[in-house]
Amino acid sequence: MTDVRTETDSFGPINVPSDRYWGAQTQRSLTNFEIGADRFRWKFPVIRSLAILKKAAAQANAELGQLPSELAEAIVKAADEVIAGTWTDHFPLVVFQTGSGTQSNMNANEVIANRASELLGGVLGSKRPVHPNDHVNCGQSSNDTFPTAMHIAVVAQLEDQLLPKVLQLRDTLHQKAQSFETIVKTGRTHLQDATPITLGQEIGAWVAQLDYALSTVRASMPALFDLAIGGTAVGTGLNAHPQFGDLCAKYIAAQTKHPFRSAANKFFALSAHDALVTTSASLRTLAGALLKIANDVRWLASGPRCGIGEIRIPENEPGSSIMPGKVNPTQCEALSMVCVQVFGNDAATAFAGSQGNFQLNVYKPVMVHNVLESIDLIGDACVSFDLHCARGIEPDLAVIERNLEKNLMLVTALNRHIGYDHAAKIAKTAHQQGKTLRETAIELGLTTAEEFDRWVVPAQMTYPTA
Amino acid sequence: MTDVRTETDSFGPINVPSDRYWGAQTQRSLTNFEIGADRFRWKFPVIRSLAILKKAAAQANAELGQLPSELAEAIVKAADEVIAGTWTDHFPLVVFQTGSGTQSNMNANEVIANRASELLGGVLGSKRPVHPNDHVNCGQSSNDTFPTAMHIAVVAQLEDQLLPKVLQLRDTLHQKAQSFETIVKTGRTHLQDATPITLGQEIGAWVAQLDYALSTVRASMPALFDLAIGGTAVGTGLNAHPQFGDLCAKYIAAQTKHPFRSAANKFFALSAHDALVTTSASLRTLAGALLKIANDVRWLASGPRCGIGEIRIPENEPGSSIMPGKVNPTQCEALSMVCVQVFGNDAATAFAGSQGNFQLNVYKPVMVHNVLESIDLIGDACVSFDLHCARGIEPDLAVIERNLEKNLMLVTALNRHIGYDHAAKIAKTAHQQGKTLRETAIELGLTTAEEFDRWVVPAQMTYPTA
Amino acid sequence: MTDVRTETDSFGPINVPSDRYWGAQTQRSLTNFEIGADRFRWKFPVIRSLAILKKAAAQANAELGQLPSELAEAIVKAADEVIAGTWTDHFPLVVFQTGSGTQSNMNANEVIANRASELLGGVLGSKRPVHPNDHVNCGQSSNDTFPTAMHIAVVAQLEDQLLPKVLQLRDTLHQKAQSFETIVKTGRTHLQDATPITLGQEIGAWVAQLDYALSTVRASMPALFDLAIGGTAVGTGLNAHPQFGDLCAKYIAAQTKHPFRSAANKFFALSAHDALVTTSASLRTLAGALLKIANDVRWLASGPRCGIGEIRIPENEPGSSIMPGKVNPTQCEALSMVCVQVFGNDAATAFAGSQGNFQLNVYKPVMVHNVLESIDLIGDACVSFDLHCARGIEPDLAVIERNLEKNLMLVTALNRHIGYDHAAKIAKTAHQQGKTLRETAIELGLTTAEEFDRWVVPAQMTYPTA
Amino acid sequence: MTDVRTETDSFGPINVPSDRYWGAQTQRSLTNFEIGADRFRWKFPVIRSLAILKKAAAQANAELGQLPSELAEAIVKAADEVIAGTWTDHFPLVVFQTGSGTQSNMNANEVIANRASELLGGVLGSKRPVHPNDHVNCGQSSNDTFPTAMHIAVVAQLEDQLLPKVLQLRDTLHQKAQSFETIVKTGRTHLQDATPITLGQEIGAWVAQLDYALSTVRASMPALFDLAIGGTAVGTGLNAHPQFGDLCAKYIAAQTKHPFRSAANKFFALSAHDALVTTSASLRTLAGALLKIANDVRWLASGPRCGIGEIRIPENEPGSSIMPGKVNPTQCEALSMVCVQVFGNDAATAFAGSQGNFQLNVYKPVMVHNVLESIDLIGDACVSFDLHCARGIEPDLAVIERNLEKNLMLVTALNRHIGYDHAAKIAKTAHQQGKTLRETAIELGLTTAEEFDRWVVPAQMTYPTA
Repeated sequence: MTDVRTETDSFGPINVPSDRYWGAQTQRSLTNFEIGADRFRWKFPVIRSLAILKKAAAQANAELGQLPSELAEAIVKAADEVIAGTWTDHFPLVVFQTGSGTQSNMNANEVIANRASELLGGVLGSKRPVHPNDHVNCGQSSNDTFPTAMHIAVVAQLEDQLLPKVLQLRDTLHQKAQSFETIVKTGRTHLQDATPITLGQEIGAWVAQLDYALSTVRASMPALFDLAIGGTAVGTGLNAHPQFGDLCAKYIAAQTKHPFRSAANKFFALSAHDALVTTSASLRTLAGALLKIANDVRWLASGPRCGIGEIRIPENEPGSSIMPGKVNPTQCEALSMVCVQVFGNDAATAFAGSQGNFQLNVYKPVMVHNVLESIDLIGDACVSFDLHCARGIEPDLAVIERNLEKNLMLVTALNRHIGYDHAAKIAKTAHQQGKTLRETAIELGLTTAEEFDRWVVPAQMTYPTA
Repeated sequence: MTDVRTETDSFGPINVPSDRYWGAQTQRSLTNFEIGADRFRWKFPVIRSLAILKKAAAQANAELGQLPSELAEAIVKAADEVIAGTWTDHFPLVVFQTGSGTQSNMNANEVIANRASELLGGVLGSKRPVHPNDHVNCGQSSNDTFPTAMHIAVVAQLEDQLLPKVLQLRDTLHQKAQSFETIVKTGRTHLQDATPITLGQEIGAWVAQLDYALSTVRASMPALFDLAIGGTAVGTGLNAHPQFGDLCAKYIAAQTKHPFRSAANKFFALSAHDALVTTSASLRTLAGALLKIANDVRWLASGPRCGIGEIRIPENEPGSSIMPGKVNPTQCEALSMVCVQVFGNDAATAFAGSQGNFQLNVYKPVMVHNVLESIDLIGDACVSFDLHCARGIEPDLAVIERNLEKNLMLVTALNRHIGYDHAAKIAKTAHQQGKTLRETAIELGLTTAEEFDRWVVPAQMTYPTA
Repeated sequence: MTDVRTETDSFGPINVPSDRYWGAQTQRSLTNFEIGADRFRWKFPVIRSLAILKKAAAQANAELGQLPSELAEAIVKAADEVIAGTWTDHFPLVVFQTGSGTQSNMNANEVIANRASELLGGVLGSKRPVHPNDHVNCGQSSNDTFPTAMHIAVVAQLEDQLLPKVLQLRDTLHQKAQSFETIVKTGRTHLQDATPITLGQEIGAWVAQLDYALSTVRASMPALFDLAIGGTAVGTGLNAHPQFGDLCAKYIAAQTKHPFRSAANKFFALSAHDALVTTSASLRTLAGALLKIANDVRWLASGPRCGIGEIRIPENEPGSSIMPGKVNPTQCEALSMVCVQVFGNDAATAFAGSQGNFQLNVYKPVMVHNVLESIDLIGDACVSFDLHCARGIEPDLAVIERNLEKNLMLVTALNRHIGYDHAAKIAKTAHQQGKTLRETAIELGLTTAEEFDRWVVPAQMTYPTA
Repeated sequence: MTDVRTETDSFGPINVPSDRYWGAQTQRSLTNFEIGADRFRWKFPVIRSLAILKKAAAQANAELGQLPSELAEAIVKAADEVIAGTWTDHFPLVVFQTGSGTQSNMNANEVIANRASELLGGVLGSKRPVHPNDHVNCGQSSNDTFPTAMHIAVVAQLEDQLLPKVLQLRDTLHQKAQSFETIVKTGRTHLQDATPITLGQEIGAWVAQLDYALSTVRASMPALFDLAIGGTAVGTGLNAHPQFGDLCAKYIAAQTKHPFRSAANKFFALSAHDALVTTSASLRTLAGALLKIANDVRWLASGPRCGIGEIRIPENEPGSSIMPGKVNPTQCEALSMVCVQVFGNDAATAFAGSQGNFQLNVYKPVMVHNVLESIDLIGDACVSFDLHCARGIEPDLAVIERNLEKNLMLVTALNRHIGYDHAAKIAKTAHQQGKTLRETAIELGLTTAEEFDRWVVPAQMTYPTA
């Protein structure tokens, strides 16, 4: 049997493992919410963000004379240890708990209070000299702290994980687009052969699509910089010093180097998390772009002999347990599975975001969980796709050339010379008779050989000229 | 200015166009809910279903002594006229109204009461001798009538529209599968060449997928046979004769030839419409199947020269306003757009279905609207796809044969003779050196020519033998 | 039988009703796509946008010497008539057609060509002197025109419908928030009584939420200003003058007064419509906000006697066909049904947006349809909700005061004086014994009467003081 | 540095930790797919299911003479150890890998081959005497094994986790419904007071809704009993004995006690997983029901003093870090967050299900992951909600009685005696004048006191009488 000590809250005493720094409310949550325990425990970004907030709150409260400086210093030191990762194992709670995240806020309050008390010579569980509610949570409520931590965590993960990882892939594709800018190939619309483009243009469209998606991610961030802190229980700021929200946000900004600020309307900041919904939507847009790219890559690489086969991608592992020598576009598949997961996560986030009542939305944990998971998955998948697929994309020039030569849509270059209807006649006749455009155009007397060769030049069709 | 007459309800008098049979509450709804008026007016299936219910209710109430037979007969006659489509223009209301459908229930009550009164020599707007609430709505509430009409309408549209129209496409595909059962071609997994199948097997998988999806549609129907009627306002059946629900359902069954019955639990029947959610989900499954089929068809028909091109589909119209002679898989595209719309409609339906409170779900109109729209769209799109695409699917035997010959995955037939690792070596070498499997196998000394020809027979690879 | 004339395209001749100005390809689409014909016909915003584009294209082509000025002038005149609504009945096509919108582009080309030819003395169907492809579609492809029209239409509807209509509701709520800024009432978190707020603060949160949602709508617009025009078939601009895209966009901007411009990357502009996905997501955010507001309103107005009942809303119509005198929050219900529909439309849009291949996304029509429908519905519903509900919101002061007096969470004001644990004891004791906080605090000896009265002042709890 | 041994596959040699039983392909996957590693590792149900299949395959192959009995016996023994959980740590792979699950199939093949070889005296990594492909995977492909394991895992989790756990909650509610069957209370429709029901009827509706949702879960199961096994690479069954699929399914049925069978159409079984989509939809329906129940519970328990407050639920933990004594419906919140997560998981599953191409759907892992996660979450949340909330639901009889007495909708009982319009007049007058129905009815001369008391009897309004 584990050694225990007694912790108390307004519900009375409860046993806690003696080597854990959490307190009564964390322990109750562990018992009361055995839901998805193995997959839905909070990861470090949320824990770290709660600690960043608690540190800033102590600093602000001390500066405003709401907290004795000795206590504040101990809280700061304890919070710094949590930020450093020292106490991560003391945050055992999961997503599916109180919808305000109260128990995770209390988990942070309890661990930091116990550790700060210990630093000041106190005894674990005594709440002295540092009390989890009266001191660590001073001037705060779960209702403003948890959404504040949500924003801190999401901003950090966007900046530190998502953006650099997606940009890594984006830059690889950009470099590919530049390398392949003169490779003229068949364009395809409706899956049907169309007028030529260069492989560089084709890949460049993916880059532009990623750039746009990333711009929507970035555009979602200013609203994330608005923090609920200072609103306390219902948005009025009851029990917080009137300058607490601003000052606390200032300390958070200093700690994180992100321009966090106190939200203009705290009532909105507690009762809805639409900034997260917007971020989630931008991740969905990004996932939609990545799905399009993954599909294009695998279709262009399809074959090796009975598909399109215009590009080659790295062969990383045996593709089949039964078909020897088969190689599959597995990185595309992993990425595309991530994309549909992100769509699902976004659906959950937006649904949750719509279900607030009165002064509180009580789907906070599930919202931030889904956004953070999508960030992780997209980041990981982009790096994997970059390293194991995108960097190795190479054109199969022989296939590209063969396809281009037989492409009937080169006929489009004739529109301006002989009109759409005549050009259509050439293409249709060539198609029906299995002939080339050139021989058909001449046979139909619609161009001379010389004209045809002058007018139909695939490379020239890939850029407009005056 | 239009001629008007005065109608009244508990809110007082209101002017109604004198040539319209609706009454005060319908008129108020017209004024109060100007939302989506041009697209979201109820179509005939809902109007007809309300009238079927009102007729059955009058029959049941008369039989139970709740309604004088003279009034009941007039109501039945008026309802029969609505069922026949005579008064459709007198149902002007839209989906976005009261969430219980109260105003459409009252629309039916008012039109039928006015018409029945007229048949009995009364004056429009007088509510005499037939009163919309006391007589047409006798023993009923919007809360049980509207969901009853929802079920009647959905069952009718499933039986009369969806099932026959999807089956029409299914039967065409089935016939194609049989016609093409000996055409051996390249299979594809991960978009990569795989071991052979027949075109009949490939199309047969579509048929099986449709059959399964249709089985889920049918499986959703028994719950639709359960009618809310008899529950009145909150499920208790207050103000209805205790046998009213059963008897009314019996008359509805007789009228519609579908095995409707009174729901076992009326409280559930008013407060949730999960049977509709299930039907919606089955339509989503069907849409998912149709999307897979539409994608397979357009990919198999891709080209004409730089794609897979193993089948040909009808050319129905010019494909491009700029590329002469281009023909596109437009039926696939229309069908696939319908499929994503059905996914969206289903998302709305399921969301709405989750939002009930206490004794009533007040998203009834939007739920039935989405289900009926999905039914219409799938039905129309399947007929269009059948007539203008599926019936014209033909194999391009030359392409099929060419692709099959060069398919490296024929090597799989060697596994049982020389083992997976040796077979992989042949496939990889052939791939790298651009050679055939046969010459590579012999060069590597892993089979003799005679063995290769005996072991690697594509047609035999399409069915297992002992 | 209708009189007909013969029109032709590259598929040959086809009969068209002689009083219709459309041509062969429109006619083929009518026959080939009988899908959702009664609900999914394009509405004026799309038709008008196509004509705006055709006008601008003619102007640009004339300026660039690509089109004789006589023809260009006739095209401009014909297009102006379409813009004025003269020819709306000549646009019979529906959403579910070719995924590039080719047939609607051709519908515009054909109607304008026929009308322009007529203006110049030509005969309908002759394609002379104005040819639908060679002249009206000069330098264009469906692949760049249809997405251009999509953006024009969405921007117009956002600016002209959505923003003013939502702002109308927003301004009403803002005015209510100001009127009620001193009405102190019970706050609610987790649906449980919480510390006080003012009714103005409560409603102000709705305003802030709408403001944020509208800011995301506006933030989505710059990407809509980027037009695909100039990309023609695959993005290269083949067959268009190199300056055509820029100049055409300039003319569109001049016509519409919106800052449209030629997209930097045309390949992206054809192959994905992520700007529409972003707009759709912002509409979803807006719908989520409106759902929260609709729910708050109906819960606050719940009762009249057995609910919360702190506000009163207008009584617009009888609420029940069976319960006399019942009045329901029907505007909230209509609005909330619109919200779930918008969620569904968004799901369809985002799904469609992810399904592009190579140089084209062929879900264009279904994407723009869903976005435009959501705009219409939200706009209509906001006006309806404003006129018939929001303007009439009034506090029920007696209920508000009664609820506030008995609210146990006023105890929170004591935290800073006697600590969280003591305050909790007072609240719990009062709750268990059914007493007031005041008498309990005194009985427990935790405050004096004088202290309690000084510390617990609900109005002071609604704003922070130093 | 970890000790390693060399394993090989068709890509060559690779180092594997010497204490791990997996082989080369598992190791490659570990390197190539570092995506979501901490949350998305396969849990035991999938690992166990793969082993059940491998055991059954060995039994079937031995019986059909495809595998020497000595090897088969060793494979069975090794698989039994995996089934017993002995080797779970040797399955390190995650969801986001090859879309066919090939690498997890190979993980099973490799671990079982190594262990079986070891049992027969062989050396790890030697593939002798038991080869992962030739023996453990004999007559199989990832394309038929992985979906077979998917079905085995989902059926097991539905039967062993979901159904009993949801039924546990259902039975608690059923018992509550019976206990409270005579407690007459205010019904509510549109959130407004409506005619009376009993608390038993109210809770009974939840039970009926759960029963229906569970019936849809069960209805989805027969399609899950259809196994892909026997289809091998593309559905033809190449390289498998013709009786292998049937016999293997028979052994799986014997091992699991579920009526698994070989699917009638293997092509469908590989190319789509619509049975899983149906199961996912039924879980969504169940989540919708649970959300409705969670919402009803928390609204009925809202207050304690300024809400509806007709029931009391257990107080499990302090509700607020700032508001002393606050108790929140936290179990409702955790359950409702699970419900929106299930909606999101379902959206991902259905999207993935629609994206198959040709002979394979390559979203297998993400589909089964989401279904299994939803099963886990619903099961856990129902048990938590049952233990910590539902069992403790108690009526607050004083509140219920007080609300019932003042409920104006009792007037409905008068409809049959004085007509709807007169009854409406009473209700409206009482409402406006703040009086009781009884005094108003008498004052208006519409009933006598005696009539009122005889006709308006709330308890009698909760069930219909002849």
